[in-house]
Amino acid sequence: MSRFFSNKFYKLIPYIPGEQPKKTDYIKLNTNESPFLPSDSVKEAVAEESKRLMLYSDPECIDLREKLSKVLGVKPSEVVVTNGSDEILNFAFMAFCDENHPIVFPDITYGFYPVFANLHNIPYTEIPVKADFSIDINDYIGINKNIVIANPNAPTSLLLSISDIEKIVSSNPDNIVIIDEAYIDFGGESAIKLINRYKNLLVTGTFSKSRSLAGARLGFGVADKDLIADINTLRYSTNPYNVNRLTLKAGMAALQDNAYYMEKCKKIVDTREYTARQLENLGFEVLESFTNFLFVKSEKIDGETLYKELKRRKILVRHFSLERIKDYNRITIGTKEQMEVLIEKIKEIFKENNL
Amino acid sequence: MSRFFSNKFYKLIPYIPGEQPKKTDYIKLNTNESPFLPSDSVKEAVAEESKRLMLYSDPECIDLREKLSKVLGVKPSEVVVTNGSDEILNFAFMAFCDENHPIVFPDITYGFYPVFANLHNIPYTEIPVKADFSIDINDYIGINKNIVIANPNAPTSLLLSISDIEKIVSSNPDNIVIIDEAYIDFGGESAIKLINRYKNLLVTGTFSKSRSLAGARLGFGVADKDLIADINTLRYSTNPYNVNRLTLKAGMAALQDNAYYMEKCKKIVDTREYTARQLENLGFEVLESFTNFLFVKSEKIDGETLYKELKRRKILVRHFSLERIKDYNRITIGTKEQMEVLIEKIKEIFKENNL
Repeated sequence: MSRFFSNKFYKLIPYIPGEQPKKTDYIKLNTNESPFLPSDSVKEAVAEESKRLMLYSDPECIDLREKLSKVLGVKPSEVVVTNGSDEILNFAFMAFCDENHPIVFPDITYGFYPVFANLHNIPYTEIPVKADFSIDINDYIGINKNIVIANPNAPTSLLLSISDIEKIVSSNPDNIVIIDEAYIDFGGESAIKLINRYKNLLVTGTFSKSRSLAGARLGFGVADKDLIADINTLRYSTNPYNVNRLTLKAGMAALQDNAYYMEKCKKIVDTREYTARQLENLGFEVLESFTNFLFVKSEKIDGETLYKELKRRKILVRHFSLERIKDYNRITIGTKEQMEVLIEKIKEIFKENNL
Repeated sequence: MSRFFSNKFYKLIPYIPGEQPKKTDYIKLNTNESPFLPSDSVKEAVAEESKRLMLYSDPECIDLREKLSKVLGVKPSEVVVTNGSDEILNFAFMAFCDENHPIVFPDITYGFYPVFANLHNIPYTEIPVKADFSIDINDYIGINKNIVIANPNAPTSLLLSISDIEKIVSSNPDNIVIIDEAYIDFGGESAIKLINRYKNLLVTGTFSKSRSLAGARLGFGVADKDLIADINTLRYSTNPYNVNRLTLKAGMAALQDNAYYMEKCKKIVDTREYTARQLENLGFEVLESFTNFLFVKSEKIDGETLYKELKRRKILVRHFSLERIKDYNRITIGTKEQMEVLIEKIKEIFKENNL
């Protein structure tokens, strides 16, 4: 830290992203990316658009917002697109929370929420999830604070029903409820359909997981147009050209090829169920997943050791040191072939260690 | 504004970017873009990288930082890359300014500086430039506040010498001096060579102008490694994957093709001088430009009228309503052919209005 860094941040601990190894000889099951290539038209759209890179991108992102709003069943004025969904989450924390408007979220969830809160000096409370890692919605009903819930949740992979989400939103009319739906396309029901009834609901999404565009950085927020206008006030005060030309076109092409991506999602769900059964056969406890990853533990081997043993064998999974979940690993669903290698390697680890 | 928007922002007036018309039948001389295509290898690099879009980008941006630091003559630890240079400027305002660390900048400069200051609740002072729009460095010597200066300045196009910059930096050792070098490749001398002597200097740059990549969004900051570490603390607390895969590769390819871009810069400088002489022949006052634009006024026609008359004729230039510069227009240097059309259209406007 330099002596010039503002005191505001001297205790700030940044988010630590999952490892992104330079070498490509790993089976990479640690950051919930899709194992499937983007559709061909993404490649074509990007190559074509590279001819126009000397011109700024459209700060209103109007073409993409029109197309996305059609797919989501809302109006363009109810959508904002961002440089990944971390950016829409950051804007939402900035816009609607402050010293007098604290935020609450589960203790086991996306690790970026407390970072955003600390960054903006926002008081926050982490509400413990139950022993089985599920969220008790009674903890949130009428709490009268801003709320952010990842649904399905990460890293637990568990889902709240749309009616539970609605109970939380409707019981806190004077507070913003952010539903972070990064993983919604792998089995959940989106809360977007509720935005016309609840002016305090912001739903966030991403093209990173179900649309194979993690590397393009494309996120979005959906809410009543007044909330979107507030987000845009911050966006235009920070980085009006926040989404670049290539990503705008990649997003358009991905929406055009909806059927391709939905088929890949189905494949991932099938592989997830296959992998879950295989791991259960090996004695693992596997939480019921509505995402493109599994959250698992074994009585035979602790979480960190399994992570390290797999890494030695060129498979990367995600281990968190947080006390309540340190026995677990989060394993992204890759191709069926990759998951078969995973299962073989776990058997090998068990055998070599006489487990 | 919604009733949920934080009071912190209720008076915030966002930055207004230049018009980005949907129709392509305009000669677009309003946002200082390059008239030249990116080099062929940018297109190839982007098309090739689109196959890897399902994977997150490298949060450390190490390949690009290594290449860029070589071109700039610094170490990779002294460089951070961002989603356009607005992002590095925003991070710098956040990191080094606060209620107790105000910032100063010229009254006629990039219109985003007061927006960043207001966004983060930073006290600021706009120091009037002289009647000829030049910056009086005596206003900044030993001022003991943080400073941001665009050099060359926009929209004035004027340059401070490197020795003047050094006087400002060396006389304010307890404050950060940000030198925004968006236009440095069109005639200025970069202050990057000073970063090893002054730990309070941050130089920012962009690939938008001289490297024909406005639409890819790629900016950077260069400073002592401790300042860069502070910026990274904020970057990792906001959006660790802030630069997408395609832009990283486009930037790499653009650096590889350095000679191509430097030749285009020379062409723009030649066209700038040609255009300046033509405008002077028509009676315009033209400030001495070290950028890819001209800042001009005519006694015959007021700034807003000229802007509107040109727009009617499908040429977009930039007019600012700010009192001190409302008589001027900022005209981006396009191709020689585009500038010939501009001159013809101005002659036409003068003739039709008997000027």
